[in-house]
Amino acid sequence: MYYPEPMGMLIAELRRLPGIGPRTAQRLAFHILDLPQEEANRLVAAIVEAREKVSHCSICGNLATEDPCTLCNNPRRDQSLICVVQDPRDVVAMERTHEYKGLYHVLGGVISPMEGIGPNELRVKELITRLQDGSVKEIVLATDLNAEGEVTATYLARLIKPLGIKTTRLAHGLPVGGDLEYADQVTLAKALEGRREL
Amino acid sequence: MYYPEPMGMLIAELRRLPGIGPRTAQRLAFHILDLPQEEANRLVAAIVEAREKVSHCSICGNLATEDPCTLCNNPRRDQSLICVVQDPRDVVAMERTHEYKGLYHVLGGVISPMEGIGPNELRVKELITRLQDGSVKEIVLATDLNAEGEVTATYLARLIKPLGIKTTRLAHGLPVGGDLEYADQVTLAKALEGRREL
Repeated sequence: MYYPEPMGMLIAELRRLPGIGPRTAQRLAFHILDLPQEEANRLVAAIVEAREKVSHCSICGNLATEDPCTLCNNPRRDQSLICVVQDPRDVVAMERTHEYKGLYHVLGGVISPMEGIGPNELRVKELITRLQDGSVKEIVLATDLNAEGEVTATYLARLIKPLGIKTTRLAHGLPVGGDLEYADQVTLAKALEGRREL
Repeated sequence: MYYPEPMGMLIAELRRLPGIGPRTAQRLAFHILDLPQEEANRLVAAIVEAREKVSHCSICGNLATEDPCTLCNNPRRDQSLICVVQDPRDVVAMERTHEYKGLYHVLGGVISPMEGIGPNELRVKELITRLQDGSVKEIVLATDLNAEGEVTATYLARLIKPLGIKTTRLAHGLPVGGDLEYADQVTLAKALEGRREL
């Protein structure tokens, strides 16, 4: 009410972003208003281009500009190993360990009855399809090590084991209840090394 | 490096914003990528429009979509009283008190030899020009109550008092060393009420 309307609109839009409170929104709005034109253009272009060019790989579900993505398309990756994760941030966390050489499968979430998310809301069917030709020998279930992540891993293990595929889970080197995304590289690498069969 | 390039670019641009670290930038980028098209358009439009439509009032220097701004142009505001502040956020803070009925003058900063900011980098000349016709009877110096704010207030007081204009400073009801912007309304109103002549 004390700001010119377009300024108020900008603050309101920024406040809709996650973790941005009124003070931060105001600070960001002032900063954006004061940016040199070139930098403002770059910010806007980055938003527009990321949305236009980035979509999901039809095989693994990871973020990608190509389809299939560069990970799925890389012949040097171990095609017999698939790591199942909740979302693309977890792929980044796994890649940072430099220990994992297989493929990925991004579920797009975890089973959560509270939020009405069941297997049908996740990319479970797509995962099972990938296992049909017999080339995959092991599935690493790398969902978060909290209740929902464990439920999802257990559900998937029951689905996959009958197909005769080895099903492993990241070791509890990670802090229990922790988010995969926030794990440090060494701990995550250790957890991968100590993975156990379900 | 583990993200598709447009995604990495977006994260990089977001990281350039004040107070946005790598984690937050990543979270925001994912959020922006997942926004419905309509909401993404609104965010981009808000940035572009705020930059296009909001500029500075040529009289008071406050943010405005019109020139002169609605505050300068309001005949019900006390034209004999000018409150000098560092930046537009401080105008908002003053207006929130509902106690101040005069005009404003936004300096655009404070004197800071460390950062090479002297009176010539601020809107000091414009302030003196506004005092020439004799209609202004009092100047409230409402720069922040820290070292630089005090130096700026003292400098302006020395410049203005010889013109025969009453020069006041916000009372130290505000915590010393505090930012005007973060003051609560009651404290700021008290500080205004107890303003003292320099």
